[in-house]
Amino acid sequence: MRFGDSPIRSTYYVNQADFVACHNPSYIIKGFKMVRDVKPGGTFLINCQWTPEELDKHLPAVAKQYIAKNKINVYLINAIDLAKEIGMGKRTNTILQSAFFSLAKIMPQKQAIQYMKDAATKSYLKKGQDIVDMNHKAIDLGATAYVKIDIPASWKTATDKTSAPKYKGRPALVKQVTEIMDPVAHMDGDSLPVSAFMPHIDGQFETGAAAYEKRGVAVTVPTWDAEKCIQCNNCAYVCPHACIRPYGLTKAEAKAAPKVTKMAEGKGKAMAGLQYTLAISPLDCMGCGVCIGQCPTQAIQMVPTEGELAQQKAFDYCVEKVSRKPKLEGTTVKDSQFAQPLLEFSGACAGCAETAYARLVTQLFGDRMYIANATGCSSIWGNPAATSPYTVNKDGHGPAWSNSLFEDNAEHGYGMHLGQQAVRNNLKQKTEELIEGRCAEPLKRAAKAWLRTMDDGEANKAATEKYIEQLKKSSSALAKEILSKSEFLTKKSVWIFGGDGWAYDIGYGGLDHVLASGDDVNVFVFDTEVYSNTGGQASKASNIGQVAQFAAAGKEVKKKSLAEIAMAYGYVYVAQIAMGSKPAQTIKAIVEAEAYPGPSLIVGYCPCEMHSIKGGMINCQEEMKKAVDCGYWNLFRFNPAAEDGKKFILDSKAPAGGYQEFLANEARYNRLAREFPGRSKELFKRNEAAAEARFKHLEKLQAVYDDTQE
Amino acid sequence: MRFGDSPIRSTYYVNQADFVACHNPSYIIKGFKMVRDVKPGGTFLINCQWTPEELDKHLPAVAKQYIAKNKINVYLINAIDLAKEIGMGKRTNTILQSAFFSLAKIMPQKQAIQYMKDAATKSYLKKGQDIVDMNHKAIDLGATAYVKIDIPASWKTATDKTSAPKYKGRPALVKQVTEIMDPVAHMDGDSLPVSAFMPHIDGQFETGAAAYEKRGVAVTVPTWDAEKCIQCNNCAYVCPHACIRPYGLTKAEAKAAPKVTKMAEGKGKAMAGLQYTLAISPLDCMGCGVCIGQCPTQAIQMVPTEGELAQQKAFDYCVEKVSRKPKLEGTTVKDSQFAQPLLEFSGACAGCAETAYARLVTQLFGDRMYIANATGCSSIWGNPAATSPYTVNKDGHGPAWSNSLFEDNAEHGYGMHLGQQAVRNNLKQKTEELIEGRCAEPLKRAAKAWLRTMDDGEANKAATEKYIEQLKKSSSALAKEILSKSEFLTKKSVWIFGGDGWAYDIGYGGLDHVLASGDDVNVFVFDTEVYSNTGGQASKASNIGQVAQFAAAGKEVKKKSLAEIAMAYGYVYVAQIAMGSKPAQTIKAIVEAEAYPGPSLIVGYCPCEMHSIKGGMINCQEEMKKAVDCGYWNLFRFNPAAEDGKKFILDSKAPAGGYQEFLANEARYNRLAREFPGRSKELFKRNEAAAEARFKHLEKLQAVYDDTQE
Repeated sequence: MRFGDSPIRSTYYVNQADFVACHNPSYIIKGFKMVRDVKPGGTFLINCQWTPEELDKHLPAVAKQYIAKNKINVYLINAIDLAKEIGMGKRTNTILQSAFFSLAKIMPQKQAIQYMKDAATKSYLKKGQDIVDMNHKAIDLGATAYVKIDIPASWKTATDKTSAPKYKGRPALVKQVTEIMDPVAHMDGDSLPVSAFMPHIDGQFETGAAAYEKRGVAVTVPTWDAEKCIQCNNCAYVCPHACIRPYGLTKAEAKAAPKVTKMAEGKGKAMAGLQYTLAISPLDCMGCGVCIGQCPTQAIQMVPTEGELAQQKAFDYCVEKVSRKPKLEGTTVKDSQFAQPLLEFSGACAGCAETAYARLVTQLFGDRMYIANATGCSSIWGNPAATSPYTVNKDGHGPAWSNSLFEDNAEHGYGMHLGQQAVRNNLKQKTEELIEGRCAEPLKRAAKAWLRTMDDGEANKAATEKYIEQLKKSSSALAKEILSKSEFLTKKSVWIFGGDGWAYDIGYGGLDHVLASGDDVNVFVFDTEVYSNTGGQASKASNIGQVAQFAAAGKEVKKKSLAEIAMAYGYVYVAQIAMGSKPAQTIKAIVEAEAYPGPSLIVGYCPCEMHSIKGGMINCQEEMKKAVDCGYWNLFRFNPAAEDGKKFILDSKAPAGGYQEFLANEARYNRLAREFPGRSKELFKRNEAAAEARFKHLEKLQAVYDDTQE
Repeated sequence: MRFGDSPIRSTYYVNQADFVACHNPSYIIKGFKMVRDVKPGGTFLINCQWTPEELDKHLPAVAKQYIAKNKINVYLINAIDLAKEIGMGKRTNTILQSAFFSLAKIMPQKQAIQYMKDAATKSYLKKGQDIVDMNHKAIDLGATAYVKIDIPASWKTATDKTSAPKYKGRPALVKQVTEIMDPVAHMDGDSLPVSAFMPHIDGQFETGAAAYEKRGVAVTVPTWDAEKCIQCNNCAYVCPHACIRPYGLTKAEAKAAPKVTKMAEGKGKAMAGLQYTLAISPLDCMGCGVCIGQCPTQAIQMVPTEGELAQQKAFDYCVEKVSRKPKLEGTTVKDSQFAQPLLEFSGACAGCAETAYARLVTQLFGDRMYIANATGCSSIWGNPAATSPYTVNKDGHGPAWSNSLFEDNAEHGYGMHLGQQAVRNNLKQKTEELIEGRCAEPLKRAAKAWLRTMDDGEANKAATEKYIEQLKKSSSALAKEILSKSEFLTKKSVWIFGGDGWAYDIGYGGLDHVLASGDDVNVFVFDTEVYSNTGGQASKASNIGQVAQFAAAGKEVKKKSLAEIAMAYGYVYVAQIAMGSKPAQTIKAIVEAEAYPGPSLIVGYCPCEMHSIKGGMINCQEEMKKAVDCGYWNLFRFNPAAEDGKKFILDSKAPAGGYQEFLANEARYNRLAREFPGRSKELFKRNEAAAEARFKHLEKLQAVYDDTQE
């Protein structure tokens, strides 16, 4: 540490310090390699409530060895209880600062104490003399409250009793987690040798790694009341992090479940004979509380995390052991949630709407998805390097995911499609050859079934399984050749994900080009109406009067109608959805889009941290409903393949009022009212007028796109 | 020259040759510096019909001096007449080849003659013995038909009797033409020192240089029959090169006109007392003949150029001396053509539709246009370096033009607008200060009038003139400051030009962004439905079944509806036009677009050499009419500022049949019928069906955008 009148203009990376203090005991438990930075003979201060004996239990062997071998002076201080005692609550910093000056001896202790007290007086006098007094007391206490411990000679050869945690899972993934993620998580990434990355030299990482990262960040998590629950699965439908999941358990599964598992008789025909449970992962939950708002019977409520930690076992059991049941007729909210989410435990903001949409898509098609992701929020929560929240099912199938540049993501996804198509066309030819040649009847039948269903995602999945089964029985060279590319046999579901900054602006030229191609790709736009990830710049999706970077006085022009523009092609499936408003319409649109054998574009409304909704993101889904009800956002579907000739269906009702109240509920708008009251009135009025005109326009489009009328 | 069995794999730039031959006497007259490449003591052979005395007249002094000083052996040969005599017509090459072997003596003459005869036999035997005999005769003749001339001693100090041509015009332009264009035109650009480009180090060149380049390439040009003419000006309206221009002459102007000037009494009220002439420039005409097809009374017809060369004088007189008269009421085809075209004599293909549109736009707003031009045909004819066809009027006002990259041209033009706006907003503030301060009443009035008309292009032009006049009378510092930026006072007309490759594809992302801005820029898309300039690649403007690069088997998906997409914004003026179909609609759309105080997009249908229309580009304008009549192309205007609430006007009638005949009339389509007959039928049917559906859709849009209906 340097003192002086001239400012320090350089940065110094200190890794051989005279003094290091660990202010948070969890860093010791987590094994952060802190003491390693103390120079031989230096001082290491640990703030904890432990006795020396307890420390002996918690300190990793590697730290003990370093301490013993390098004659480190170790001190303990319990600033946690001291701070509470003198009324400072969680604020331990003043005590620890004083301890530092006392131990580090960089100036006479008396002088140091005086300096600190003067500074405290200056800082806190405005807040009252009692605060000042409290801080002075903390300074006095800190200077003496530490205890030096004796270092047992045995530490020189210490070993850890509990061996390093062994992870379960796919070997390549476990290796990646152990060799890369763990050191990084322990802030020891710099120590990784280049060779650690050899399995990833082409940039590929295993999916599913996010599940190994148990953050445990939520202070409160949901608890489930099995009796009150009507088993609608709405809570799971909205969960951004896939931490709340319904299961149907057979008697055997129920019997084998951990004792903490709460269960109820399955409701409804499909659940007959099954036990229903709502598994919740307290260690993965972000505590957003969105699920609570969606429960019609208050069967879940937020409670302190500590009491719920035991539920982790039940959750882990269900994920690992319980198969998907029941499979209901049709695709409903309830049914969709019995499917395994193949996006889980991402690092997205608590309450994020984007991840809830993406999770839902993976529940519908995840085992055969290819995702091209534009740079932006969805690429950040979608794959922080090595820690993918996209994962695989028990068969090892899950979304393949890749991130492209901001501007060429649509082309990137289109390339995935074209690549698939080229390989599959080749497989088609080979299969036709196979059928024409001499081959066993069952193989021929399977091959024909595969050919027949080539373009039907769901049907082709089963046909492919049977085809592979038969191919394996054949010894022909052709069969072997087809088998060598078996991963390309099933029809994949190509998805292009990105935000509005990408879709409306920077990547729009490419998006337009890909939609115009007429080829079978699916685009999902997470529309937050602002560049969320880069700090809130206005995009063409931003609306009149919305305050954003580059639009500090409110945006002047109305939101671009990306959906209507795409409709102009006539052969692009287009939908606008808001999952919190009409879940059935959301699922219908996603299913229709995926089934449509041409390009599809879904624009999903995404409330966002950036909107600063009153009450916070706990209201995310509710805010979508409000947006649709007042006409701020419209729901519709344009299906070029509509069998009844009515291509355009307006799924929203006419605006029901409350438009200005909706705007006032979000700081992205209401701050304009504070900063430019007159202008805000005019712009908000224009915003509402544009919404009214838009709804009338959409109503007219029903007739325009109704082929039964001439 | 090298002979041998091993091929020559390198290139050699020969500029000190033993032997140089000039096969075309016009190169001598044009002054190409050919003899300079003969080494001292070498041989120079000239093919011409001249006597040595006539050569003395035609050869420039610089060539004579080089010949005399370097002891060049000069030979004349009249292969032109010899070839005719022996029945080979214009084919002089065999005679001249033989003369070369005889003079250059690179092998024994007898042997050379035998080789040549053997080769001729081999080449032409298939075509008949008479052809072989003719060539053998030519070889014998060539070997002896040349005559060596004596070089007069006076050539050492020869001077040219006629001094170098002196150009009239703006001094900077004359300097540029003399010092850069002339040497380049004489294939002597390599001799230019870097210093010649010093006036252009920032990339700026003077406009109007194309007028100095008299190509004289047309074999036939139009001749005008003053009596038959009804003075409709249709011919001038369609001329791609601005080579045919109507004038109204006062008695004095008519009297001062060259004798060759044909005139007729002016027809109609506005022309009362004026003589009408149709001035034609035979040296600038490309001979496309498009004008002939547009004349309702056959008052113009194509005749050999030679007989019309005298008309150049009349044309030059009118351009230089005759002022614009009459100025008719409203903006009609007839009136528009009395305005000076500020785009003239470009190097575009004969019959080009793009230049006809652009010429028309310059007649309407040229004196205050800023043009940003995307790379493509329109940037190639729009400004081959140093030879701009954009020009200025007698006041020195004309379009400012700049070429950007392919992909960012819309942004480039938007930047021009924003730059203008920033300067003008500053001038507005200064003008308000001026009005508030002490200033003379007439200045105050002029300043107020300028402020009032700031956003009205035409009105602001006159107001600015008066304002500048008054500012000049003032001695205040503020007035001087405003005057220092006087070129920015008038409202400019910002235009963004480009082809469909730019607008529909590569530059579309930027175009969309600029249109979305809501700002006052005008976009003109020259829609040739293909990348014309780069060799005919398919663009999103190409249509079903059209054959192009990357669509060799006919394009699969229909044409993108750029116009309808832009309409989705609601605040963009949009029009589709075809100047050969409904001229009044074309002019109306261009005028409305320019007047609209927001973004405007005009998509102009452009038949193109690339379409290979039957009969050639002489049918360019007629083909537009056919396209509209059969419903291949639709005319409409979407005016957000429409006062009657009917924003969308469909200007085309329902398809009148003849669709397949239209497609069959263009090789871009009919070659598919030859190459893939079955497929072509299906695609052409789909193309027609899409056109029918599109027309019905456009009809429905009238109701959608009719604010008087609810």
